[in-house]
Amino acid sequence: MGNSDMALKADLSALEKTYLRWESEGVSPFFPVVESNGDNTVTIEPHGELVMFGSCDYLGLSQHPALKAGAVEAIEQFGTNTYASQLICGHTRIHQTIEATLGKMSGGRAALMFPSGMSASAGAVSTLASSEDVVINDRLAHSSLFMGSRLSGAEVRTFPHNSMKRLETILGQCADKRRRIIVVDGLYSADGDYAPLDRITELAEAYDALVVVDEAHSFGSIGPNGLGVADHFGVLDRIDVIIGTMSKTLGSIGGFVLTHDWFERELRYMSPSYTSSRGSAPAVAGATLASLRLLEEQGNRLRAQLNSNTEFITERLRAAGFDLLNTRSHIVPVVVGPEDKTVAVAKWLMGRGVLVAPFVYPHVAAGTGRLRVGVSSRHTADECELLISALTEAKREFGF
Amino acid sequence: MGNSDMALKADLSALEKTYLRWESEGVSPFFPVVESNGDNTVTIEPHGELVMFGSCDYLGLSQHPALKAGAVEAIEQFGTNTYASQLICGHTRIHQTIEATLGKMSGGRAALMFPSGMSASAGAVSTLASSEDVVINDRLAHSSLFMGSRLSGAEVRTFPHNSMKRLETILGQCADKRRRIIVVDGLYSADGDYAPLDRITELAEAYDALVVVDEAHSFGSIGPNGLGVADHFGVLDRIDVIIGTMSKTLGSIGGFVLTHDWFERELRYMSPSYTSSRGSAPAVAGATLASLRLLEEQGNRLRAQLNSNTEFITERLRAAGFDLLNTRSHIVPVVVGPEDKTVAVAKWLMGRGVLVAPFVYPHVAAGTGRLRVGVSSRHTADECELLISALTEAKREFGF
Repeated sequence: MGNSDMALKADLSALEKTYLRWESEGVSPFFPVVESNGDNTVTIEPHGELVMFGSCDYLGLSQHPALKAGAVEAIEQFGTNTYASQLICGHTRIHQTIEATLGKMSGGRAALMFPSGMSASAGAVSTLASSEDVVINDRLAHSSLFMGSRLSGAEVRTFPHNSMKRLETILGQCADKRRRIIVVDGLYSADGDYAPLDRITELAEAYDALVVVDEAHSFGSIGPNGLGVADHFGVLDRIDVIIGTMSKTLGSIGGFVLTHDWFERELRYMSPSYTSSRGSAPAVAGATLASLRLLEEQGNRLRAQLNSNTEFITERLRAAGFDLLNTRSHIVPVVVGPEDKTVAVAKWLMGRGVLVAPFVYPHVAAGTGRLRVGVSSRHTADECELLISALTEAKREFGF
Repeated sequence: MGNSDMALKADLSALEKTYLRWESEGVSPFFPVVESNGDNTVTIEPHGELVMFGSCDYLGLSQHPALKAGAVEAIEQFGTNTYASQLICGHTRIHQTIEATLGKMSGGRAALMFPSGMSASAGAVSTLASSEDVVINDRLAHSSLFMGSRLSGAEVRTFPHNSMKRLETILGQCADKRRRIIVVDGLYSADGDYAPLDRITELAEAYDALVVVDEAHSFGSIGPNGLGVADHFGVLDRIDVIIGTMSKTLGSIGGFVLTHDWFERELRYMSPSYTSSRGSAPAVAGATLASLRLLEEQGNRLRAQLNSNTEFITERLRAAGFDLLNTRSHIVPVVVGPEDKTVAVAKWLMGRGVLVAPFVYPHVAAGTGRLRVGVSSRHTADECELLISALTEAKREFGF
């Protein structure tokens, strides 16, 4: 979920009142209690089985038998948790193999596996930067990257989303800092667009800056080798720190960092996010390893299917007059506008058998509420048609 | 793992060199690759099966068949991950039941479940405090609490470990702040002693302060109802925010917060640690729920066994002249002193069939390296004897 310098605090009580009002009026689509998950479906009372278009599971792997088998096998071998931190005895053969596999996939980068994407992001940025440095964040970068920036003690600057002109200006102003660290998402989670990593890596070279890219929504699903937006632009070897997550395309949970050897060592021994937090549960690690193996075997085919579904949905929705911002990915934001209306449409769609993810302030800018459609390689033609017809009907009904 | 204001950065490269030197000299006991876990055992090459005395799994639940069954059942029902965040569709019936169960166990507190203990701590403190407030931390409080304190934007003060005199002085100096927030661990993870919550709650009342207690190492294992150190002191209803984890006594992974209704709502809708991080994986939630049910049924019996093992080990080690600090719990720190020696003893013990957790700087103060013994209710008399004889031999061999 995008955004947010945490200077949002002043607004919090008003916001809470909005969410609580929606709750008390019975129009809140948030925190539905899920009874079970199926292949592209989720069962929520009183609606029954809904087709899942609010997902971040872009290749549908969370329901794959191979991942389930990997998880169950790991439980048999290691139990439901390791006995202590990875430093002491929580780094199993599975964790080690995952790190080796990620390293190999990325062409020999050092790889480190964290218990969550958030701990990977916050840990990497807070360890890389210190008080002598400046961290320069895209304003829509994920909240966990802002968390890491604030924890680092560095000066924190921001630039308007994807504004290369403003980024260059800031870089020019920070020549006296020990490190200049540019921090961006690869694929923006509420907008569906890419960071221009071709241009960002050029600027980094010109101004002697380090580049950190969070590929949470793109690792496994974007680029010729499925390694993310840096892979798409062919600049993988010019990124200093790639952050990824297992919680999205990989159908499991966790985070990871791909980086230089020296920084991997610093994180492994010194980042509290790594040393003081339990490593991934055996079941989670087992599913992740199965997922990486599946991606090595079938990734190209699954990504081709994902692209085909994305093109179909995007073209049809654009033709029907929907505002999809500048999306160029499997994240398709359907802009509604006002918060109240966005929430109402999402709730109405549940009654039509479709679940999408409503994003409203503070997760996106005020007045730009949207229904975030997450496309999956596993969506059938019928499911895509259901989404398009339900959205078209909603557009007429609610006017947006 | 205790401690650490993150102003340790200056030391980091020297520290890394220490750890890397141990690694290159082949004496590092850290990050052993675990081949499998058994009941109180862990298999690590070339040592083979070691008896587990470095664990935080105080009731041995991570290897319990009921937890494994709960995890497998959840995988069948929900897959290896939920489809998106809890806000959208990641809050399953299992997550809901866990929160209801925790609420009931704690006498009607509002309960919120986080993906990790670290996210619960950092999320709770950073959301509770803001720039108008002061957060007053025990210097040995867990690093995740310092993380939350720094993220909050509040003034951060610290007091020497358990110094009530100094805490009172600071409270007296902060009358002009909107909120005074006292932040402590219930049971200190590297020392084994308690926070004096009887006195802390009195001071909180006298100076109109809020109290946050991290019961990571005590929830499930301490107190007449197993609810932690606040339960032990009978002051549960005077604590504003109780933080706990599923990663220790509960044999699963995750964190939780027990608190006032108003604060639970604020966290649920507004804390990025909750809204922007994936909830616990289905397998993890399934194991957690099974664990809570087991604790309701068998908790008293298991805790009695844990206390009996703890008393046996502590008395025998004290009689043999070991320095165990002021421990009064299942966390038994055996002080060795210098870092090099602490690490060497831990490694030597692995060759004797025993795994303990070496804690050295920066996780504890320099020169106070210790072997952290984690007692379990499931340790047999033979296993306890093995620990005591191996430690006694080590003491002679290394001199400490």
